[in-house]
Amino acid sequence: MEVTRKNFKDCLSAVYSAIDEADFLAIDGEFSGISDGPNVSALTNGMDTPEERYAKLKKHSMDFLLFQFGLCTFKYDTEASKYIIKCFNFYIFPKPFNRASPDIKFICQSSSIDFLASQGFDFNKVFRHGIPYLNQEEEGRVREQAEERRNQQANGAATPSYISPSSKGPAHVPEEHKDFISRVIEKVDGLFTNSEKTVELEPCTGFQRKLIYQTLNWNVDVLCLVCLQKERYIQISKVDDDERKRREQQKLEKEQEELNDAVGFSRVIHAISKSGKLVVGHNMLLDVMHTIHQFYCPLPQDLQDFKEVSMCVFPRLLDTKLMSSTQPFKDLIPITSLAELERRLKLAPFKSPKTAEGFPRYDTAQEQLHEAGYDAYITGLCFISMANYLGSFLTPPKAHISPRSKLMEPFFNKLFLMRIIDIPYLNMTGPDLRPKRDHVLYVTFPKEWKTSDLYQLFSAFGNIQVSWIDDTSAFVSLSQTDQVQIAMNTSRYAESYRIQTYAEYMKGRRQNKDVNSQPDQSWGEEGWVNHTNVTLGKRSISPNQADQGAGEAQATDGWNQSSHPDGMGNKKLKTDETDSAC
Amino acid sequence: MEVTRKNFKDCLSAVYSAIDEADFLAIDGEFSGISDGPNVSALTNGMDTPEERYAKLKKHSMDFLLFQFGLCTFKYDTEASKYIIKCFNFYIFPKPFNRASPDIKFICQSSSIDFLASQGFDFNKVFRHGIPYLNQEEEGRVREQAEERRNQQANGAATPSYISPSSKGPAHVPEEHKDFISRVIEKVDGLFTNSEKTVELEPCTGFQRKLIYQTLNWNVDVLCLVCLQKERYIQISKVDDDERKRREQQKLEKEQEELNDAVGFSRVIHAISKSGKLVVGHNMLLDVMHTIHQFYCPLPQDLQDFKEVSMCVFPRLLDTKLMSSTQPFKDLIPITSLAELERRLKLAPFKSPKTAEGFPRYDTAQEQLHEAGYDAYITGLCFISMANYLGSFLTPPKAHISPRSKLMEPFFNKLFLMRIIDIPYLNMTGPDLRPKRDHVLYVTFPKEWKTSDLYQLFSAFGNIQVSWIDDTSAFVSLSQTDQVQIAMNTSRYAESYRIQTYAEYMKGRRQNKDVNSQPDQSWGEEGWVNHTNVTLGKRSISPNQADQGAGEAQATDGWNQSSHPDGMGNKKLKTDETDSAC
Repeated sequence: MEVTRKNFKDCLSAVYSAIDEADFLAIDGEFSGISDGPNVSALTNGMDTPEERYAKLKKHSMDFLLFQFGLCTFKYDTEASKYIIKCFNFYIFPKPFNRASPDIKFICQSSSIDFLASQGFDFNKVFRHGIPYLNQEEEGRVREQAEERRNQQANGAATPSYISPSSKGPAHVPEEHKDFISRVIEKVDGLFTNSEKTVELEPCTGFQRKLIYQTLNWNVDVLCLVCLQKERYIQISKVDDDERKRREQQKLEKEQEELNDAVGFSRVIHAISKSGKLVVGHNMLLDVMHTIHQFYCPLPQDLQDFKEVSMCVFPRLLDTKLMSSTQPFKDLIPITSLAELERRLKLAPFKSPKTAEGFPRYDTAQEQLHEAGYDAYITGLCFISMANYLGSFLTPPKAHISPRSKLMEPFFNKLFLMRIIDIPYLNMTGPDLRPKRDHVLYVTFPKEWKTSDLYQLFSAFGNIQVSWIDDTSAFVSLSQTDQVQIAMNTSRYAESYRIQTYAEYMKGRRQNKDVNSQPDQSWGEEGWVNHTNVTLGKRSISPNQADQGAGEAQATDGWNQSSHPDGMGNKKLKTDETDSAC
Repeated sequence: MEVTRKNFKDCLSAVYSAIDEADFLAIDGEFSGISDGPNVSALTNGMDTPEERYAKLKKHSMDFLLFQFGLCTFKYDTEASKYIIKCFNFYIFPKPFNRASPDIKFICQSSSIDFLASQGFDFNKVFRHGIPYLNQEEEGRVREQAEERRNQQANGAATPSYISPSSKGPAHVPEEHKDFISRVIEKVDGLFTNSEKTVELEPCTGFQRKLIYQTLNWNVDVLCLVCLQKERYIQISKVDDDERKRREQQKLEKEQEELNDAVGFSRVIHAISKSGKLVVGHNMLLDVMHTIHQFYCPLPQDLQDFKEVSMCVFPRLLDTKLMSSTQPFKDLIPITSLAELERRLKLAPFKSPKTAEGFPRYDTAQEQLHEAGYDAYITGLCFISMANYLGSFLTPPKAHISPRSKLMEPFFNKLFLMRIIDIPYLNMTGPDLRPKRDHVLYVTFPKEWKTSDLYQLFSAFGNIQVSWIDDTSAFVSLSQTDQVQIAMNTSRYAESYRIQTYAEYMKGRRQNKDVNSQPDQSWGEEGWVNHTNVTLGKRSISPNQADQGAGEAQATDGWNQSSHPDGMGNKKLKTDETDSAC
């Protein structure tokens, strides 16, 4: 079901009850861009620490707009042995709801916009009919302001004094408008001496309108007048006490409704959060970050604080990209982009789940990938197929595995980390993996160098993996740790390039950071070894993922192949990859 | 005529010849926002110096996208005594044209987007079918890169060596892909031993495709192969020398055409610039700034440099907002927003010009304001009406005044400055007006203060004008210079607020700037008096504008009432101006 500002209020109770009755939820977001700083390959360096990755995404991805949000609710019907699915595709836009509300600025990235355009994305629907929202701080402030305004008006109305507007005009009416304003005052004064209930003022400019309001406010705060803007005219009416009270009550109700309208889509996120239900997404770190940033609060500086906020908002998360690249799925699923995952899960040994849609909407035969609602739908189906596959290992085998099953636990609250070679996921409920990286070198070189130059430089050391940092530096992982010292020795007299061990590099960074007093001590040389122990302890909790280090899934798959057509290669490789006559 | 990426190439020659034959051109732009920093009233402070205003617009307005550009060409048909008009409404979007081209990020301001949406603006047309563009630096770089690539390939092709791909595989194929790659090599080798001209490789991932290109490049740079990407497959063909040359020629031509396509809409601006014709706009400073910034080069730091660049790009500019707020029009035209101006110029003593449209498109009876092409059209018509009105003062009176007439000269190259009380325009071909401002006070106060507090504070001094700077400071202009000293004296013991003369304030700013070494000495206390003399000398050139100081036009007119619904009030006034029961 498509939800815009036009039908949002009518849909809201259907959304609430779909969330209430669901066994789990699937979500997906579409954004106006990915990175406003480095290109995506630099944004997602293969040797990032979780702290670095979070800091980069926070810095370079949060000024984009989450402008489409997909929510699918999945409820298992035990008797019919199938899932009842309800899908909502929300269009989101921060339409300022009045002059005091925040005037949000957001960035668009041409490549992302162009990609969505090529998929038929409807920008008019977003910008014309998108549902507004407020984060919690904005909501609080707006409600406070409304309260204050009401109090002021109530106090004003209680004051019994009445000064005729003509008795003391404000001092600041410019000379050329004085005639106009005195005609207005005369008319308004007339209201109290004749039997008319209403006068219409002559047409005026915005500036003159401002003067009128000031003049009347200045003198007749408590005068029983109602000023209605009627096209370009101002109509002024005399009303009695009852009528004034009735109008005030009406105004109050209207104001409350407008405030709720302004909170808008945030109410859906609040409902998801309050339900505490399992929320499934595919490569969902950015979705979670954007959702919190846009509808709750600015993201915290620190990764640990982010994890805590996230767990408050979404107490149980599951990332199908992480699940599918973890055993026992990893060996069966070579490519984990959502489209490829869906394709693979239709084949044996997997089984497509039996489903029925709460409302007619999506048809998996007809691809609508990159519409948030459809992607959420597919994500939910993929989760069910994988969950049910785990049931085949039980004795006796079970065809349906509940999302609440113990079998799901190893996958809870671990968010896939794109392209990090040796840290497959962000652990939302504990410390992250801390691989040793003692086979990794930090290399700096002239900016003309390409990947092939690095391969040549390290050709004696067998297979290597290159993670570009920028034009003049990269991490190079050797396959054998014992070759690190040899590589270091051979580089000693090199002039064009320079090699450091990963530990040396991190130590230098830490010292640098200490000077700039930014908090990131956890990857220092000493803390490192300690953390590795913690890590090993942590690993044993989910043994399935013990071999999650090869990084194949990350390397072969673009950024969820979503929102960014350029997600695949890095700059240096790209130049080698022209489809050209050769 | 509506021009998008789809018909741009077909329209280009029509655009060129319309520019060539025109007597003058009218332009207008629509942007994705106005200010990414302060609100519009702070962005356009009534006491800005021209340098300050330029610096603020450059800093806070240039990251928005000019996404619709209107161009109307006006050619006078002497025999029929009427103008032939051709209008083009271009949709603009920086679609990245290949992987190496810049991936532009631009900002959207919700209020502006919402305003355009309410006017029926078609965002899908912009984002799906917008015409791309490159500025001059980007164009140069892209052409250089193409040249380099060609040279490299030419050199590669000249090398006679041929090494069979199987003889020395690259060292860096990951273990798990080695089988796949050796199957590829086998197939390609096969091409040279059997009679097939083409092989299709098995389906592969993006990463495997990368490996294939590397493998083949590594060894078979000069092998006569053409690699075509065919959906998810790679097809490899064996071709002879003639065929290879033909394909290379084809490729070169295609590349050149793609480059021209990438330069895209910038070619229209180049043609306007090259024509040297009079370019008319309404409140056009931002249009000129955006046009140069987007299609020529990043804006210079310094206002003087900006004027020089502008005069290179547009040697003759005329701003109808400035013209209409200058004598003899000022007294006849109370409101100078484009819509009001158009309405007024349909009435006596003005005459609507006789026109014929080159192509059927716009009808002034049916308003399409805020479409760039329509706004440019109206702007041109307003210019003609005003120009012809000047002819009525001649003896004998003339009904048609050419845009090249001497009567136009006072209006050339002066761009309207929004809401600056005493400097009506930016003088593009000389020093700007330097009013003395010795009746102006700089006041700081608690952030709770509103405009009414300032009126009260200065109530003894008659009429004042308030120009808000931020929450805690404003400029206050007294009507009498001799009251400045009295105001200063009475404020001496005040605790809640503080008053400085304008000269003191500017001196403080200059000293502050010297510390931060930013260039802006021109408004220092000493230079100031000197400049005033220059100013007076300059004023005598266009006597019509001698009384352009009252700022009425600026104060009563919103930001061209275009692109920004909120342009009218400032924050402090707004709270006084609620349309409420009072």
